[in-house]
Amino acid sequence: MTEPSVRFRHRGPRMHTTARHIDPMSDAAIAATVTPEPIEAVGARLGIPADALYRYGPHKAKLSLDFIREIEDRPTGKLILVTAISPTPAGEGKTTTTIGLGDALNRIGAKTAVCLREPSLGPCFGAKGGATGGGRAQIVPMQDINLHFTGDLHAIGAAHNLLSALIDNHIYWGNALDIDTRRIAWKRVVDLNDRALRSIVVGLGGPANGFPREDGFDITVASEVMAIFCLAKSLEELEDRLSQMVVAQTRAKGIVRAEALKGIGSMVALLRDAFQPNLVQTMEHTPAFVHGGPFANIAHGCNSVIATRSALRLADYVVTEAGFGADLGAEKFLDIKCRQAGLAPAASVVVATVRALKMHGGVGLKDLVKEDAGAVVLGAANLRRHVENMQKFGIPVVVALNRFLSDTPAEVDAVRGVLADLGVNVHVCSHWAEGGAGAEALAEEVKMLAARPSQFRTLYPDAMPLAGKIETIAREIYRAGDVALSPDAARRLTELEAAGFGDLPVCMAKTQYSFSADPKLRNAPTGHTIPVREVRLSAGAGFVVALTGDVMTMPGLPSVPAAEHIFVDADGVIGGLS
Amino acid sequence: MTEPSVRFRHRGPRMHTTARHIDPMSDAAIAATVTPEPIEAVGARLGIPADALYRYGPHKAKLSLDFIREIEDRPTGKLILVTAISPTPAGEGKTTTTIGLGDALNRIGAKTAVCLREPSLGPCFGAKGGATGGGRAQIVPMQDINLHFTGDLHAIGAAHNLLSALIDNHIYWGNALDIDTRRIAWKRVVDLNDRALRSIVVGLGGPANGFPREDGFDITVASEVMAIFCLAKSLEELEDRLSQMVVAQTRAKGIVRAEALKGIGSMVALLRDAFQPNLVQTMEHTPAFVHGGPFANIAHGCNSVIATRSALRLADYVVTEAGFGADLGAEKFLDIKCRQAGLAPAASVVVATVRALKMHGGVGLKDLVKEDAGAVVLGAANLRRHVENMQKFGIPVVVALNRFLSDTPAEVDAVRGVLADLGVNVHVCSHWAEGGAGAEALAEEVKMLAARPSQFRTLYPDAMPLAGKIETIAREIYRAGDVALSPDAARRLTELEAAGFGDLPVCMAKTQYSFSADPKLRNAPTGHTIPVREVRLSAGAGFVVALTGDVMTMPGLPSVPAAEHIFVDADGVIGGLS
Repeated sequence: MTEPSVRFRHRGPRMHTTARHIDPMSDAAIAATVTPEPIEAVGARLGIPADALYRYGPHKAKLSLDFIREIEDRPTGKLILVTAISPTPAGEGKTTTTIGLGDALNRIGAKTAVCLREPSLGPCFGAKGGATGGGRAQIVPMQDINLHFTGDLHAIGAAHNLLSALIDNHIYWGNALDIDTRRIAWKRVVDLNDRALRSIVVGLGGPANGFPREDGFDITVASEVMAIFCLAKSLEELEDRLSQMVVAQTRAKGIVRAEALKGIGSMVALLRDAFQPNLVQTMEHTPAFVHGGPFANIAHGCNSVIATRSALRLADYVVTEAGFGADLGAEKFLDIKCRQAGLAPAASVVVATVRALKMHGGVGLKDLVKEDAGAVVLGAANLRRHVENMQKFGIPVVVALNRFLSDTPAEVDAVRGVLADLGVNVHVCSHWAEGGAGAEALAEEVKMLAARPSQFRTLYPDAMPLAGKIETIAREIYRAGDVALSPDAARRLTELEAAGFGDLPVCMAKTQYSFSADPKLRNAPTGHTIPVREVRLSAGAGFVVALTGDVMTMPGLPSVPAAEHIFVDADGVIGGLS
Repeated sequence: MTEPSVRFRHRGPRMHTTARHIDPMSDAAIAATVTPEPIEAVGARLGIPADALYRYGPHKAKLSLDFIREIEDRPTGKLILVTAISPTPAGEGKTTTTIGLGDALNRIGAKTAVCLREPSLGPCFGAKGGATGGGRAQIVPMQDINLHFTGDLHAIGAAHNLLSALIDNHIYWGNALDIDTRRIAWKRVVDLNDRALRSIVVGLGGPANGFPREDGFDITVASEVMAIFCLAKSLEELEDRLSQMVVAQTRAKGIVRAEALKGIGSMVALLRDAFQPNLVQTMEHTPAFVHGGPFANIAHGCNSVIATRSALRLADYVVTEAGFGADLGAEKFLDIKCRQAGLAPAASVVVATVRALKMHGGVGLKDLVKEDAGAVVLGAANLRRHVENMQKFGIPVVVALNRFLSDTPAEVDAVRGVLADLGVNVHVCSHWAEGGAGAEALAEEVKMLAARPSQFRTLYPDAMPLAGKIETIAREIYRAGDVALSPDAARRLTELEAAGFGDLPVCMAKTQYSFSADPKLRNAPTGHTIPVREVRLSAGAGFVVALTGDVMTMPGLPSVPAAEHIFVDADGVIGGLS
């Protein structure tokens, strides 16, 4: 053995991280105060045998598809949906409430699992941060889950991009399918926020590199592969849905389905392991299935059907959340996911904060610490409407008010007052600070509500024409006065119905910040017009997307991205993730 | 629970795979004939405690960095390098020989581990197929290793692309570093063969998407992050090397290092788990470290230093391979990896086949089954030169002749005759058909050779000027008559020396198919000119790349890619991987 020569100028011990310490108030530090149970012990709480768990280290596992087939015929538990008011910069805490409620249900003796979406790397390094809850209501190991986790998003990205490569390769080798290179809908994906890739030209540099054409990258979670991954009930259905995706048009305007590119088997091979639901735990050892995470605008924004269905066969209560506010997240959860997967929620929780209601009531971010019950009454109109909407689906509702130190009794009473005539209770929750103990009253009520027979109904029947579905959502949920279909959109809806896609549900791509299509219009606007500029078919996911404005499918990074603050300390611990 | 409505047109049971069965003669089927041991049992053969293994399912694990630090001061075993003649379409079997020799050494009682590169998805779906050996000389589980394995390549890709996104984001938010958008060396990567991404324009679509500029994608294994990943001895060194990468020039021609983009901590966080060496096993349960896999043209083409160094502290013999033929792979292994990591191989095996030597001797692919000892004598000049080259490094050599049924005794004798005066033995090996039992004679000789005191020396000293290093490699290894530096390359070498990079080793990017720069010139050409068109600095990897021709850093797919034949069967088993 020779001594290494100093070819590489090593500049001494960890010069980039010496000054980096884990902030003791950070979520990472709080999460580190508990010792996670071995994942087999977590699975055992749900009666999962150890050999049904495919381990990724001591605290993460995938649930085998064989075991999922075995439990298929078991009776199912109660599904609880956690949704929220229209989001504001004041914060609501939907994920923490999902986790806190799960922990609280277990505390009061109800065998409960939670089902969450898995985080994307893009927001982690951007402005939003991670997606594993906060305070004492977190899932762990938070660093692992926020970074690569078990590799699902990478698998989805690889499957997506393999199809992209096969499309250009097909064109390169003669284009037997006669794909119109101006009409390729299938873009490429990367699991990062990277605005420079939104609009690109590929195939430059001469004949060896193919035919130049316009293209672009979406973030991986916006891929239709992700939407399908989260709706398929089996590997077989996953394959069939992937085959049916429409990726391009021919010169003669015929559709080109993904299966024509002959790579579906490879895509399924890439997705096989990822398709197994991931099992982790909350800080209080409640089993948590964290699996899949489609965009909530151009897709349905909830975790995988296979995770939710599996959890329902293993636990008496399954608490899950839907993306964005209830007008988007819950509506899609109910009209798309539940419709397609045969699920029926037994109860729903609408999450709000006094602070956020004050913002809806017109108070600025800096003034939120001042008591203002009047503003709360005003802004609670937003909450009230979301509650009414949930009731339209026939689901019992309770409101969870995530406590902040600045909240006053008068403000909390104001919220209660606004909802009194709806027969809906408000529970002040403190699971962020106290874990499941801070959400026990909420858990008791959820248990009680869920005991009632299900009255769940979707908002519209399959048979309603597509334009009618859009109008129904706009009037019933958004309280719009009108829907303005662009000529393009109207023509496309007619085309889709003629092509036999008329009985699909509609996936609305609308701003999450308002019931209207204008993100600045907070609270509870009425009489607005919902413009539908464009309509897209997600033939494999099984829905028609109606775009009401600029839809971002590739976020950008802020001027000081979170990536600047993440580090590995001298002990190999990852810090700076929030 | 409601019944799912038939929103998605499921077209019946697994219509895409019913006709798909695993070929019983395929490598996958042969691999499936053995039951792998639990990975803890494999680790125990090397004295690795179970708690030093981070499991990915029952048959894959990562070795903890804490444990690697613990064993740092242990005495080291003998390092055996497996290299090969210049490749031809007839095939050589370098990876199978590495595996077969490892198994054979264990059979004769020598505690042995093998160290291999991990496969890239691109070639798996392209023309080349997987990289886990073949026949009875395979590492398992072959499907897992060939597909996502433990996610290392995805982690490297994410770390690379995060830096790419940070560069464009920096420019977007004001470009305080004054990066010249025409001179950004840092491209993007994807782990697929996708020629359409070789040359692209990004940042189109208006101000919100940034500044349009030329860009391109390399395959992930061509990333400097991969090269660094495979040369760093610790996480700390990994971070330091990443920081030092040169990613762009400023308008004033100053260099912009990666650390200026402030994302190094995040890159290390993304790479932390991946950096732990992967442990799997051969079909005969020999421990196999399969970790890292840089390109063998613009990088050094061997598995990670951290895997090799760890294996040497756990086993008495470590068998490893280097990419391409010995003129490229072994030279870089010795002059770059061994130089930087302080390694000294105790013996080397040069792999050849009678078939391939006949091709070097001028026989066409279709005529290889006909006996032609004369052609073997002619073509063995290629083998002889590679053997002589290994001897120049002071390393004992033995030749492994991978047996094919068409080989005749006269042909094998011809090979022996050509090498007789060099004092090098030739062993006919049949590990492909018989596993380790087919390479025992080779193993005995390797053990004997490795017992001699090391005479290893690098080809050139650090202090030699860069142009001198290129000339030394060209004359000593390639037997060129001359080196023709382009004016650009000559100027760049001078610049690099002035900037203090003169003592770095040189990484030659040359065709693997010939000692010359002309891929059509088989066998043992002399007197040729090695053109150096371009010189690139890999400041983090710690070498200077000399490009002698068109270098492909993003492969394309063939007209019928392997992706068309891969599938998941009705039992969830992946087939069609080769």
